[in-house]
Amino acid sequence: MSGLFITLEGPEGAGKSTNRDYLATRLREQGLDVVLTREPGGTPLAEQVRELLLAPSQETMAADTELLLVFAARAQHLAEVIRPALARGAVVLCDRFTDATYAYQGGGRGLSQARIAQLEQFVQGDLRPDLTLVFDLPVHIGLQRAAARGRLDRFEQEGQPFFEAVRQAYLARAHQAPERYALLDAAQSLEAVQRDLDALLPMLLDRCRG
Amino acid sequence: MSGLFITLEGPEGAGKSTNRDYLATRLREQGLDVVLTREPGGTPLAEQVRELLLAPSQETMAADTELLLVFAARAQHLAEVIRPALARGAVVLCDRFTDATYAYQGGGRGLSQARIAQLEQFVQGDLRPDLTLVFDLPVHIGLQRAAARGRLDRFEQEGQPFFEAVRQAYLARAHQAPERYALLDAAQSLEAVQRDLDALLPMLLDRCRG
Repeated sequence: MSGLFITLEGPEGAGKSTNRDYLATRLREQGLDVVLTREPGGTPLAEQVRELLLAPSQETMAADTELLLVFAARAQHLAEVIRPALARGAVVLCDRFTDATYAYQGGGRGLSQARIAQLEQFVQGDLRPDLTLVFDLPVHIGLQRAAARGRLDRFEQEGQPFFEAVRQAYLARAHQAPERYALLDAAQSLEAVQRDLDALLPMLLDRCRG
Repeated sequence: MSGLFITLEGPEGAGKSTNRDYLATRLREQGLDVVLTREPGGTPLAEQVRELLLAPSQETMAADTELLLVFAARAQHLAEVIRPALARGAVVLCDRFTDATYAYQGGGRGLSQARIAQLEQFVQGDLRPDLTLVFDLPVHIGLQRAAARGRLDRFEQEGQPFFEAVRQAYLARAHQAPERYALLDAAQSLEAVQRDLDALLPMLLDRCRG
């Protein structure tokens, strides 16, 4: 048993957590052991690091600080949740993972891919998601949806160019490794997105049993 | 102007902060611009990371998490305090720095020196302290002094073997690079330690002006 590690990526307002729950229901109907989690966070300690990352602050957080905090939370999440779940053969559905680091700290903040890759290797060794669902959304729609949710966190306070860079980084990664990514049009209705997820299910189940 | 970066190392109860203040007074008498700071911490954000590191917790903190949090706080401290102070030519007196990481996360937790060195290079580039004062103390004396201060933090709750490993790591580093370290016997009276610091002053002033 080696489990299956599926990550969901995309901006705020793309429906990641709703669709993560939907996918969990479909997979559990098939009798699979499914673990739902998210980053940054996923353990009480990692959630405390998440609060530091998201809280608006008077002090400018250095890009390196942000990157190291993201990977500190990830190391904890891997040790306490993800690796144990995969080891017992579960399907892990994780709302954001290291693709988000390449998108937000790389695309958004401008840190080099090489620098991010160095910490990815340091923290994860050879562990990578088996499949990543990218919920793609035009930036202005994501910003409207995030604003409608109320108070903006430290990332949501960024401007349109930041989120354009995030989106482009996600798309570039999806195009570079199409065997690992499924690109979903999150501007559609929720029903349409879920029909797309249903279409992916046979492939997912095949990998779960493979 | 490139400033002078002096770090003070040793266990709780070794008198680092008292002697840091004493040294600052002596250096300021000579008209030097002296910045006092500490790790983990030194900025409001880095102090929040310090709280996470020191707070006793139900959840076991993975060794990698601890190491990445230490370097996250350090990246912020370098960006906001240490590098700007050195750039304007100040003397920075810092209570603990990366030698503490080699001692506590390396010696104490058993992380490899190579792994720590990788993050040291990642975060600091080529920046290293110009001089490190190691306040050496037999473990049982440090433990008595720490216990007398009240509630123990997450590190202070460790046992004697942890602190023996911390002490040996400090001593090994001091012996490997004697040109960068000054070893002080912190089991002496405060007056005797400060006489030893006075004896180092001409060398310090020489480096400040060099």
